[in-house]
Amino acid sequence: MPSEFDLIARYFSPTTTHTDLAGGDDAALIRPSAGSQLVVSSDMLVAGTHFLANSAPESLGWKTLAVNLSDMAAMGGVPRWATLALALPLADEPWIQAFSRGFLNCATRYGVDLVGGDTTRGPLALCVTIFGEVPMGEAITRAGARAGDDLWVTGQPGLAALGLGSLTGKLTLLEPAAKRCEEALLQPVPRVEAGLKLRGLATAMIDVSDGLLGDLGHLLVRSKVGAVVETASLPLAAALATGIAPEQARSALLSGGDDYELLFSAAPDKREAVSYVSDALSLPFTRIGHLTERTGVLHLLEADGTMTDPAQLGYDHFR
Amino acid sequence: MPSEFDLIARYFSPTTTHTDLAGGDDAALIRPSAGSQLVVSSDMLVAGTHFLANSAPESLGWKTLAVNLSDMAAMGGVPRWATLALALPLADEPWIQAFSRGFLNCATRYGVDLVGGDTTRGPLALCVTIFGEVPMGEAITRAGARAGDDLWVTGQPGLAALGLGSLTGKLTLLEPAAKRCEEALLQPVPRVEAGLKLRGLATAMIDVSDGLLGDLGHLLVRSKVGAVVETASLPLAAALATGIAPEQARSALLSGGDDYELLFSAAPDKREAVSYVSDALSLPFTRIGHLTERTGVLHLLEADGTMTDPAQLGYDHFR
Repeated sequence: MPSEFDLIARYFSPTTTHTDLAGGDDAALIRPSAGSQLVVSSDMLVAGTHFLANSAPESLGWKTLAVNLSDMAAMGGVPRWATLALALPLADEPWIQAFSRGFLNCATRYGVDLVGGDTTRGPLALCVTIFGEVPMGEAITRAGARAGDDLWVTGQPGLAALGLGSLTGKLTLLEPAAKRCEEALLQPVPRVEAGLKLRGLATAMIDVSDGLLGDLGHLLVRSKVGAVVETASLPLAAALATGIAPEQARSALLSGGDDYELLFSAAPDKREAVSYVSDALSLPFTRIGHLTERTGVLHLLEADGTMTDPAQLGYDHFR
Repeated sequence: MPSEFDLIARYFSPTTTHTDLAGGDDAALIRPSAGSQLVVSSDMLVAGTHFLANSAPESLGWKTLAVNLSDMAAMGGVPRWATLALALPLADEPWIQAFSRGFLNCATRYGVDLVGGDTTRGPLALCVTIFGEVPMGEAITRAGARAGDDLWVTGQPGLAALGLGSLTGKLTLLEPAAKRCEEALLQPVPRVEAGLKLRGLATAMIDVSDGLLGDLGHLLVRSKVGAVVETASLPLAAALATGIAPEQARSALLSGGDDYELLFSAAPDKREAVSYVSDALSLPFTRIGHLTERTGVLHLLEADGTMTDPAQLGYDHFR
């Protein structure tokens, strides 16, 4: 019976296109482009915390890389290389095969070379480090937003939280919207192309992995600005199509996690350019508010003109 | 009570010296030197598999980075940056504080910027990715050894295995040798300076983390050579000072794990240069054999002139 090391060699043998040495040595050798900064991020995913222990391994493989690609997207970086370290409870060949298929599909889709990693026996945990490139000084950090900027979000945040509710039996959703929500949770699409095309347009950007208001809070603190989110502008259509109450849809959109959409700021004179990117990608971008000078202060502006503090509504925006 | 996220921010706030952006954003930004290749390696350490669950956290912090530095050393790379992803069962402030002290001591000692990472709730697991630099084409891989080369090892492999035996009560060792063995296990010294000074001298190199014969096997396969190890030349003094039987000392040296010494090949006309490096570092290098043309074939040459296959002696040299 093959060991997990044999299995990793069998299913993760890297085929690389822009790497000098991958696998089989003490370390990998890669060569960044001249004039570029490297963009580097690590994520650890643990069974029970980040995914259901019985997750389908192919989706899990995709998602393990996708959540790291989302960090790369949020910096405006071109993803190039990744390492994967795995702790596995046992050498389960069908599981490893399916996991690798999902992981490598995602790697191929986004042009990522898997250059190395580590495998060990232990409770299921997955650690990816991703590296990308960005031309010197062009990364989109969380710190560049200015008062007066528009606030935008890509796609339809909230669907992953509804998908989790559906899969765990806590919510009953209408088809085909339910299926779409489950896919948003299990096989998220990282907004890599959007991140790249927003270089030079977005003043600050973050990926929405912990909930829109929570991640907005991080951006506000780093940029030393405040925000007003206009609730009438929120992209609720997909969530409402599941048949849930408007309040539930809004809650999922504003505080549901695991979405991997991009939240960004841009000057008002860039609205046309931002819409052009959205059209070019066939991905809706929604202008959901604007930024203010009140550092770290976040308000919701209701359709009737009232302003509320999201904390009063039970939203934890700095968790 | 602070969350583990607050604690990580408190104890791992990176002070960096050669990094454009570390921490607090979706990813870090680093800038490799022109004309260099990046050397990249990831290691996952899991409680119970790689360290005793009750390990002192300060030593564990040191070792977590040190084992990655050892991979860097084995490539002849200059360590520069690292990311750390942690899964922690709970927010235990004294533990995190001590772990960070050990980790950051090691980082400072070897000039490594901690540039980012991730913290999550889960069974204790530690994942480090390390990045270093090497001038284009000067990395020392496992693949460059030639028949006729000498085979060298740094330091005194085997002490970590004896230290584990001592700590788990399976071996009774004499002091002060016992203390030295335990330190070799708990706080290994990565041979970074040796790796750097061996560029241009070593034809192939690997770090001895899984046991000398096992790791030698990897080098032989990658370099398509064989080896004869002369048992009379093995650096057994430190192991014998613990008072164990010669057979046990030899077994620890040849197959004990967790040592992080460097095993390398060099042409015979480089003996003087290699010895000069050893003297300059006050670190013994021992010439323990030579390489042959018999790909993957490994023999032990005993003092009486007999040749044996290590497998016959119970050594698993390709595990």
